[in-house]
Amino acid sequence: MSFSPLIEQLITSLRCLPGVGPKSAQRMAMQLLERDRDGGRQLSEVLAAAMDGVGRCSQCRTFTEQDTCQLCLSVKRNRQLLCVVETPADVLAIEQAGGFNGCYFVLMGRLSPIDGVGPEQIGVDKLMALVQEQQVTEVIMATNPTVEGEATAYYIAEQLQSRGVIVSRIAHGVPLGGELEYIDGGTLAHALAGRKVIES
Amino acid sequence: MSFSPLIEQLITSLRCLPGVGPKSAQRMAMQLLERDRDGGRQLSEVLAAAMDGVGRCSQCRTFTEQDTCQLCLSVKRNRQLLCVVETPADVLAIEQAGGFNGCYFVLMGRLSPIDGVGPEQIGVDKLMALVQEQQVTEVIMATNPTVEGEATAYYIAEQLQSRGVIVSRIAHGVPLGGELEYIDGGTLAHALAGRKVIES
Repeated sequence: MSFSPLIEQLITSLRCLPGVGPKSAQRMAMQLLERDRDGGRQLSEVLAAAMDGVGRCSQCRTFTEQDTCQLCLSVKRNRQLLCVVETPADVLAIEQAGGFNGCYFVLMGRLSPIDGVGPEQIGVDKLMALVQEQQVTEVIMATNPTVEGEATAYYIAEQLQSRGVIVSRIAHGVPLGGELEYIDGGTLAHALAGRKVIES
Repeated sequence: MSFSPLIEQLITSLRCLPGVGPKSAQRMAMQLLERDRDGGRQLSEVLAAAMDGVGRCSQCRTFTEQDTCQLCLSVKRNRQLLCVVETPADVLAIEQAGGFNGCYFVLMGRLSPIDGVGPEQIGVDKLMALVQEQQVTEVIMATNPTVEGEATAYYIAEQLQSRGVIVSRIAHGVPLGGELEYIDGGTLAHALAGRKVIES
């Protein structure tokens, strides 16, 4: 015994969403059918439009439905400063923090030979071409502080340094508002090693 | 600064799903765009089909895309025993538990005058007609043990008793595997009041 075939299909399809198990998929299906059919219809339309319409920015590789994204088109951004991140969500996080006025390059992943992700998949060639084309003077590596993120940062840094470009890495240390007592050892060691002289 | 318009729309639309806040909607959108466009397309199609195709069973009011649901069509079920539940998910739960061989009637809600849900919205008229038509002899009230569920059960029981139908309520008490120490007072009081003689 189960729900009718169409409802079962809906529950199964909802499970393609991350973090949605059988119970929440069932709850979602019931909620849409009982109380929000218009919302469900709209979600269906937007999903179809986005799955087919969203491609990648021809310059920075982030997701966009245009040929070039708004940030790359903006005349207010400093094209000689490039920040390399793993995902489009990272671009948003840095933009929301404010204070960065350069352009971005989105790897759409990180080097991970085990999963078959090499330099080609994360667009290293495209990055090198962009650096040359825009006469970039500094590249900030803002990949995640994971083993793979670090490896990616150092691989790209090596490639760029041989072309005479300044490469920097975002600072790692104790987050603002964090309490030393609860910070992991790796981060603390980083924070100590990366200490700065307080200038008088 | 935000994502491109189409991606923003996708994130907003995903929030119509229960339990999905801004951060998980963003994660879902990114996951679909990055790794599962086929899944997204399929979800879109099934959603559209379900939102327009799923109606209610002409007999028991549960969700189905046919005129009458599989359970109501089955010749193996006892039509003179009717179990009244609040939602289609409750039907599934009882079926999965096994042991019940009658038919169902799904209220699709519970009496809640504050939210404008009266006897008409939960189909009490339809229930009365079904009881007469199928010559039902016993109706089991399996609404939830909440204030509204209890009120609904007693309202419907009154209506049915005046027509000479036996009405029963599912038992409430200590769940199997539960430990008395951790059971709430209301449930314990119910379990004591509803005690049964152990027959020798």
